[in-house]
Amino acid sequence: MKHLVSMKQLTEAEIMGILDRADVFKKYGIRELPGKYFVSNLFFEPSTRTKMSFEMAERQLGLDVLPFEASFSSVLKGETLYDTVKTLEAIGINALVIRHLEDNYYDQLINRTSVSIINGGDGSGQHPTQSLLDLFTIREEFGSFKGLNVLIAGDIDHSRVARSNADALKKLGANVTFLCPTEWAGEFDSVSEWDEVIGQSDVVMLLRVQHERHEEESVFTNNSYHEQFGLTETRAKMMKEHAIIMHPGPFNRGVELADSLIECSQSRIFKQMENGVFIRAAVLEAVLKGRN
Amino acid sequence: MKHLVSMKQLTEAEIMGILDRADVFKKYGIRELPGKYFVSNLFFEPSTRTKMSFEMAERQLGLDVLPFEASFSSVLKGETLYDTVKTLEAIGINALVIRHLEDNYYDQLINRTSVSIINGGDGSGQHPTQSLLDLFTIREEFGSFKGLNVLIAGDIDHSRVARSNADALKKLGANVTFLCPTEWAGEFDSVSEWDEVIGQSDVVMLLRVQHERHEEESVFTNNSYHEQFGLTETRAKMMKEHAIIMHPGPFNRGVELADSLIECSQSRIFKQMENGVFIRAAVLEAVLKGRN
Amino acid sequence: MKHLVSMKQLTEAEIMGILDRADVFKKYGIRELPGKYFVSNLFFEPSTRTKMSFEMAERQLGLDVLPFEASFSSVLKGETLYDTVKTLEAIGINALVIRHLEDNYYDQLINRTSVSIINGGDGSGQHPTQSLLDLFTIREEFGSFKGLNVLIAGDIDHSRVARSNADALKKLGANVTFLCPTEWAGEFDSVSEWDEVIGQSDVVMLLRVQHERHEEESVFTNNSYHEQFGLTETRAKMMKEHAIIMHPGPFNRGVELADSLIECSQSRIFKQMENGVFIRAAVLEAVLKGRN
Repeated sequence: MKHLVSMKQLTEAEIMGILDRADVFKKYGIRELPGKYFVSNLFFEPSTRTKMSFEMAERQLGLDVLPFEASFSSVLKGETLYDTVKTLEAIGINALVIRHLEDNYYDQLINRTSVSIINGGDGSGQHPTQSLLDLFTIREEFGSFKGLNVLIAGDIDHSRVARSNADALKKLGANVTFLCPTEWAGEFDSVSEWDEVIGQSDVVMLLRVQHERHEEESVFTNNSYHEQFGLTETRAKMMKEHAIIMHPGPFNRGVELADSLIECSQSRIFKQMENGVFIRAAVLEAVLKGRN
Repeated sequence: MKHLVSMKQLTEAEIMGILDRADVFKKYGIRELPGKYFVSNLFFEPSTRTKMSFEMAERQLGLDVLPFEASFSSVLKGETLYDTVKTLEAIGINALVIRHLEDNYYDQLINRTSVSIINGGDGSGQHPTQSLLDLFTIREEFGSFKGLNVLIAGDIDHSRVARSNADALKKLGANVTFLCPTEWAGEFDSVSEWDEVIGQSDVVMLLRVQHERHEEESVFTNNSYHEQFGLTETRAKMMKEHAIIMHPGPFNRGVELADSLIECSQSRIFKQMENGVFIRAAVLEAVLKGRN
Repeated sequence: MKHLVSMKQLTEAEIMGILDRADVFKKYGIRELPGKYFVSNLFFEPSTRTKMSFEMAERQLGLDVLPFEASFSSVLKGETLYDTVKTLEAIGINALVIRHLEDNYYDQLINRTSVSIINGGDGSGQHPTQSLLDLFTIREEFGSFKGLNVLIAGDIDHSRVARSNADALKKLGANVTFLCPTEWAGEFDSVSEWDEVIGQSDVVMLLRVQHERHEEESVFTNNSYHEQFGLTETRAKMMKEHAIIMHPGPFNRGVELADSLIECSQSRIFKQMENGVFIRAAVLEAVLKGRN
């Protein structure tokens, strides 16, 4: 694997290979890669967990990480992403993790640079390492994906997580249902009542309300969103006993889910973040080894 | 010691233990800690000397430092400090140095996270490693604190250094006097005339005029402040021969003290910065070892 | 060599010494320096290639690099460059790479600090490592400088590259011609017609139009600049067969040169960036070894 830009590029076997490798890392620790590799994390949008998670994985793999400050780079002088990447290629960078607000930004890079690209999120498009860590967390819980009922609730149309996950989960045999306001469903079919679905779901995956991606004034206050589309304490009580709650973060407490649920026994939210480091280490390793 | 958030938490013996360890580091060099530790410096307010001093101590201890860019993190999406810290805990961070504009920000963290917290300055509250390096510098000069006359001059009410130092110095047997405009004295007694005190002081500790913390238009121009409350060349001549000048930095030349005094033979200002690295290494070591 | 602030400080032998060392690094790899050195990159102006190139060289030399975020440092509280550098000296930094918008900023530092200063660009003044990598790239191509015709085209007056290069190239025996709008020539003689010079040039060195340094409204649109002073496809066809195209980056595609020329066979633009790492490693080594 030279790049990882989208879940769509991965076969079922490749997905399982990455999850298996992350599993080994979780059980026995992340081992340093032999050889010297130079990487950099180009985040053109704010991030804490994705960026820090990659930084941690990179250090545990023993990679050399060059800091890149998007907000103080030649991008300010009008340099294009392509020219920035070609510059870093010339300087000797082996792999780049890129988050960019433009959908499919990577199309201008693949096949035009020898640097490996790992997509850390593109606009409202894909976020493959988030999907992989979600899959890892689900498999860790249930052992497999076949026949699992996964409910994805929230701002589907603006969510790269929803898109990445929907494809992969279906490919792996899970049933995916979307719950959201009709106007946020995008190209997906969706339901809008929790009562129809909460009792059958094994996984309740909540998405962040992305205030910053809504240009129009939102029709929802935080309160009214929570009442209609959030996971309230009442709804959480209707969940199956073994069902779990997931959220990619950062979460809006009291909006997508009740404050008290974030660290409840059914929540896997911080477990997801923990797992993210192993997944990213597995992806970095695959991409860097794929260079040879 | 799991955390270091305030000078108030330290006994006299603990303070002396940290100073002694810093002394060993200064004499024989900072030794790398065995084992692998991951730390990060979360500075939500601008800083050069405190942040760089921690960065240096961390590298000399052989720690893995993950960069955190407060101005480009999920804090911009409204994430709380608690949620950011829990995220970093999940990712595998062992200790965090935090500077934050909110007084006592650490109350929401202690006992709720397994990450060790070192307070790098909270609002107008505490700044314990600055206090410790000040104490170290004074002890290095005079051997002990008993009976020393320490004059703290400047913006007492807005200064975390004044608060941290006052407590500790009194506990250790020094006499502390404050000199400042009456309206800047806060809960402290203060004098407002240099002539009353300059001749008896062993240590003249100047505080930065913090223009950015005064909401109202200041009643002082830089010049009038210097004339009334600054250490002028004339006043410096009235100091005892062995007395020393201290300032936590960054200093306003010609305001808190005359430009010519900053690198004069009685100034310990850059010595304080040098000592800061040893103190921070001692604190980091204590906190990380305290984990086991 | 304790500092490198300007090409003017270097003798011909010193220049050749640095190029030779960079050559060894390029052929056999950059070797880690024995001993522990602490460096930091103080970039007060945005940069991608110069900063990342230094970061790469520093890591390959095995130096410890402390991150400095100019936009979030005590400079915001009004600290001067001199005081910032003295602070970093006190903390234990051995060498600093500095880019600053003020011409000759280094005059206030040299002889007043024990830290080695490497100039990463000062205002419209010097940019010695860029000059050295340009010289390296030219020597790599032609073997020597004697009698070479070098054409420097563009925003001469605002370009630190033009100044640094002109001095050095003449010293080494090359003939330097400037081509630019008369009002951008500064103290240099210049021509304004490509036809007079393009056929004789061995090296066509283009300079970036620095929109951000022109206070007045530019008299040129991007198109009209390209037509009159840019390297168009038509002009490129008039170049000698062995002649090469250079540009320090970041380039404005379709302004200084036609888009199609950036990665053409005569372009050495990305080769320059690659060579920059070897040059910077050679300079850092020289400066750090010069400390002993």
